[in-house]
Amino acid sequence: MATYHTTIALKTKGNCDIIDITRDVEKCIAGSGLKTGLCNVFCAGSTGSVTTIEFEGGLLKDFPAAMERIAPSDAVYEHHLRWQDGNGHSHIRASILGPSLTIPFADARPCLGTWQQVVFVDFDNVSRNRLLEVVMVGE
Amino acid sequence: MATYHTTIALKTKGNCDIIDITRDVEKCIAGSGLKTGLCNVFCAGSTGSVTTIEFEGGLLKDFPAAMERIAPSDAVYEHHLRWQDGNGHSHIRASILGPSLTIPFADARPCLGTWQQVVFVDFDNVSRNRLLEVVMVGE
Amino acid sequence: MATYHTTIALKTKGNCDIIDITRDVEKCIAGSGLKTGLCNVFCAGSTGSVTTIEFEGGLLKDFPAAMERIAPSDAVYEHHLRWQDGNGHSHIRASILGPSLTIPFADARPCLGTWQQVVFVDFDNVSRNRLLEVVMVGE
Repeated sequence: MATYHTTIALKTKGNCDIIDITRDVEKCIAGSGLKTGLCNVFCAGSTGSVTTIEFEGGLLKDFPAAMERIAPSDAVYEHHLRWQDGNGHSHIRASILGPSLTIPFADARPCLGTWQQVVFVDFDNVSRNRLLEVVMVGE
Repeated sequence: MATYHTTIALKTKGNCDIIDITRDVEKCIAGSGLKTGLCNVFCAGSTGSVTTIEFEGGLLKDFPAAMERIAPSDAVYEHHLRWQDGNGHSHIRASILGPSLTIPFADARPCLGTWQQVVFVDFDNVSRNRLLEVVMVGE
Repeated sequence: MATYHTTIALKTKGNCDIIDITRDVEKCIAGSGLKTGLCNVFCAGSTGSVTTIEFEGGLLKDFPAAMERIAPSDAVYEHHLRWQDGNGHSHIRASILGPSLTIPFADARPCLGTWQQVVFVDFDNVSRNRLLEVVMVGE
């Protein structure tokens, strides 16, 4: 049994940019030398989330549209009234989806479906350099 | 310390079918021989989610109704326009709720509340055979 | 490698009360003696959630407002019609956000952003005494 800590560096466009990090996660697991266990991918910031989606062009439009319904970018946010940074909706969306995803792995590969990708979603309203924390526990 | 990998097989009705898998999770933990640790239940597919709910008839109606508000089944989805499979809302709902749940366990039992059940929700629009991945890490 | 099980006791006001538990989580990790691993914070109840947020006054108003959009407290809930406890929306919100959060830690500290706090959200409609389950796995 062992733990392994690494990071995934990303350059995002912000504004609900959805980035496929499946290959990155696979490399993290392969690099750990672990065969079976849990891999947690965590956004150390309050305007980004990690989830899974079928990474195809239709859903890449549908997902941002759904986020607009849930936390509209043009609603009035107290966060904006206080800080004038225009990203109240970004914070709310990230808190709802959550900052992290825990992915099981076996045979040194993540247990994903064929049409299922791990994605980082940057809800912030500007381009960002992100450093996701990745911690694995297993054997 | 050890890891343990197993699966939970389910037959679902789709369409926001909510299935109580608490007993299955309990069996997985008992079968692992582990006493304390983390149990991750993961849907290896992009139209299902794992969460907890008080499994009673009222909420089994309220939860699908809430999902209709969040990602209506009759909205226009680009996913459907491309693939004609009618399950754009299924994907969106699953991405919002997330594919997995990590449940702590102690004394070889999940740390759940009395009125709290672990459920798999099949958001797809058809009946499905599902195989949930379950990985435990602990001692 | 080891596991460590402890709890965080809270007194909440209910009604979307958002409580900053970052210091509690830090203490749990420090108390475990572990340096690197995963920390799962779990609400053993079906009307509370754990997530992260920038804990500042604006968002503390925006988050409850967003929850009202997603699962309005004044909508008709079958749960209420059956049990007359007025907290149908509490259950739905908790199932959507999920009962738990898994936080990676390294150097015996949680891998959080500077403006990111771990919070427990009590969606129930009454004040509650809560005992969050915390299980860590690492080395």
